[in-house]
Amino acid sequence: MREKIVEMGRKARDAAHLMAKADSTRKRDALERMAVTLEREAGSIGEANRLDVEAAVGRGLPGAKVDRLIISEKVLKEMASGLREVAMLPDPVGEVTRMWTRPNGLRVGRMRIPLGVIGIVYESRPNVTVDAAALCIKAGNAVILRGGSEAFHSNTRLAEILRESLAGAGLPADAVQFVDTTDRQAVLDLLGLEDYVDVMIPRGGEDLIRFVVQNARMPVLKHYKGVCHVYVDLDADIDMAKKICLNAKVQRPGVCNAMETLLVHEGVAGAFLPVAAAAFRDAGVELRGCEKTRALVPDCIPATEADWYAEYLDLILAVRVVPDMDEAIRHITRYGSQHTEAIVTENFERAHRFIQEVQSSLVLVNASTRFNDGFQLGLGAEIGISTSRLHAFGPMGVEELTTTKFIAFGNGQLRS
Amino acid sequence: MREKIVEMGRKARDAAHLMAKADSTRKRDALERMAVTLEREAGSIGEANRLDVEAAVGRGLPGAKVDRLIISEKVLKEMASGLREVAMLPDPVGEVTRMWTRPNGLRVGRMRIPLGVIGIVYESRPNVTVDAAALCIKAGNAVILRGGSEAFHSNTRLAEILRESLAGAGLPADAVQFVDTTDRQAVLDLLGLEDYVDVMIPRGGEDLIRFVVQNARMPVLKHYKGVCHVYVDLDADIDMAKKICLNAKVQRPGVCNAMETLLVHEGVAGAFLPVAAAAFRDAGVELRGCEKTRALVPDCIPATEADWYAEYLDLILAVRVVPDMDEAIRHITRYGSQHTEAIVTENFERAHRFIQEVQSSLVLVNASTRFNDGFQLGLGAEIGISTSRLHAFGPMGVEELTTTKFIAFGNGQLRS
Repeated sequence: MREKIVEMGRKARDAAHLMAKADSTRKRDALERMAVTLEREAGSIGEANRLDVEAAVGRGLPGAKVDRLIISEKVLKEMASGLREVAMLPDPVGEVTRMWTRPNGLRVGRMRIPLGVIGIVYESRPNVTVDAAALCIKAGNAVILRGGSEAFHSNTRLAEILRESLAGAGLPADAVQFVDTTDRQAVLDLLGLEDYVDVMIPRGGEDLIRFVVQNARMPVLKHYKGVCHVYVDLDADIDMAKKICLNAKVQRPGVCNAMETLLVHEGVAGAFLPVAAAAFRDAGVELRGCEKTRALVPDCIPATEADWYAEYLDLILAVRVVPDMDEAIRHITRYGSQHTEAIVTENFERAHRFIQEVQSSLVLVNASTRFNDGFQLGLGAEIGISTSRLHAFGPMGVEELTTTKFIAFGNGQLRS
Repeated sequence: MREKIVEMGRKARDAAHLMAKADSTRKRDALERMAVTLEREAGSIGEANRLDVEAAVGRGLPGAKVDRLIISEKVLKEMASGLREVAMLPDPVGEVTRMWTRPNGLRVGRMRIPLGVIGIVYESRPNVTVDAAALCIKAGNAVILRGGSEAFHSNTRLAEILRESLAGAGLPADAVQFVDTTDRQAVLDLLGLEDYVDVMIPRGGEDLIRFVVQNARMPVLKHYKGVCHVYVDLDADIDMAKKICLNAKVQRPGVCNAMETLLVHEGVAGAFLPVAAAAFRDAGVELRGCEKTRALVPDCIPATEADWYAEYLDLILAVRVVPDMDEAIRHITRYGSQHTEAIVTENFERAHRFIQEVQSSLVLVNASTRFNDGFQLGLGAEIGISTSRLHAFGPMGVEELTTTKFIAFGNGQLRS
């Protein structure tokens, strides 16, 4: 097993060298071919997918998990249109982000280059195979994919199509490799490939991510969880605050950028909380509040210390009344996950201070936490969200799959 | 031990929160106080240093190692002037590197913030204590320092001065903490502090760096070694090539950006190599060459495969004649360390292709490899050179000790 994985690493490294100098047209061509072939191969993809779905049903997997596996016509269309969108993004490679001249005449700059070889370890959804590979290719990288065993047949077929499309565009098929075994040892071997894999990006639940971080010898870009806060300030527009909080909690409660804790300035709590609580009640949200919250919202369940740390991913919300913004920031610093925090306020000074002092991957004024997403923020696409501070902090698009090297043009400069 | 290190981590995290919002004036003040106090405390620093030096001599450490330990008047002056230079650098924190508006009116930007808590593990030179801490402070971070046991008394005294100066400027003393034990277990405990330390930067020999990489749970910024190449192209200016090669090899042979392998286009080898060999001979450089090199330079020692991988850090140079630039690039890719490579050529197309295709942290045209250094490239200062591609690739200055968070200003935007 180890030898096979090392061989994949070697091939990926060779492919990465070719990808790094591949021109934009060829990369775009490969991505467009992938989209066309996915649509044309709907039949064979469907067959492979059926094997996975039947096996999942046979093993009695819960309905929600089976749903995630299914490559419906709609899912296939989304994959193809995702590929076409990535194809049309500007090519980040070769951009010289800055250039300056030294006193000795040496002209120094920083040029954007691919990261090299990217490893993706993910769970059930087979669309990750296509979406993640597309971004890696666009940024000139090679990628080694290791999907969940439930989607094994689907992923294998999808990876074949991606590889054929690369070859068809004159690019190395090995720029996309799929670990075609469900043996768990293969993941460990992959995580040990520090000489071949430049970065590992795990996609999935906290357990998977912790496993990758514990075992990876190379850097890992990841977030464990999103305990996101909205702070409703003394000078909040009550109606706006209600709408933002409702959107942040209920628009899609099962995702990492949904609000998990609501913090309310005590001066506005009396006016805001009963109104908000009614709206949450209508939306089926269970509230768990501090003493002051419960005084204003009688049917609210008492919150325990554990609630402040909780990522419910469900229609449950922790609520705390705070004496001022500083206490709100202290709460966020102590219990938060550095993912996404928003303030609702009409006060200029506090809006700016919140932006400065809260060190989360996205900090918003007067907008929903649900905007922490590569598409929503305008990166064009997203391979994941990082709450590691190294290299990338927040949603990662094509640019985050690159680095910069220094370049220098001289005419004989020597060091004295 | 572990509890003590965890407590340091906790204090560093708290200090980092305060440092992140410290204004530029206060940080500059702290750095200037450090410079003044170092000069004023020359006596007490000298006493502490004497203990280390005497112990080193007593244990029979080699002269070069003892030299590195000594805080001479000159070394102390350099530390102080280094602090003043860092004090005067622009503050990177708070810079908004880009800002754009989304179709829904949300204004999105990226704001530069400190990395958080930085760990530095280093060997003998006590000046690293001051230089590294200064850069971390400037970028708004907290730092935990673990120096070599040989410099224990010196480092302890220097760290005390840094801490007093921080407090004097109204900043948390715990923004600089020194692990005041020579117990090796303390390093392992520090490397396990993933929840408190955002990044580890090892400074020293390859063994130390490998130890840190093997044991660190957090990301590590590092380079193992510098096997740097100069490629003398067919269209090189022979005289310029000779000067650049001589500078790259002999100006300071013991450092990571010195040339270790010279690659020469076969069409220019006859004109260049005898001239260059004479110059190297005069400078006391031992040449180890391929067959073709030896045909042109008769007294050259035959090179073995191991020579192409070697980082001599000495007056030894491997020399290989190549049929063309593509073979030179293949050689660099196969044997190099992605540190620094230069081409000498007057040919426009090849100069640009070399810059594009060689993926090292610094790629130069017509200049010495010795320029891969934060000061030389204009970063103002340097905490080390990274050949990891994540986060930083090349010399790391103040900016590389920061990251960016996303910020967004809205007026009630909701996700639909």
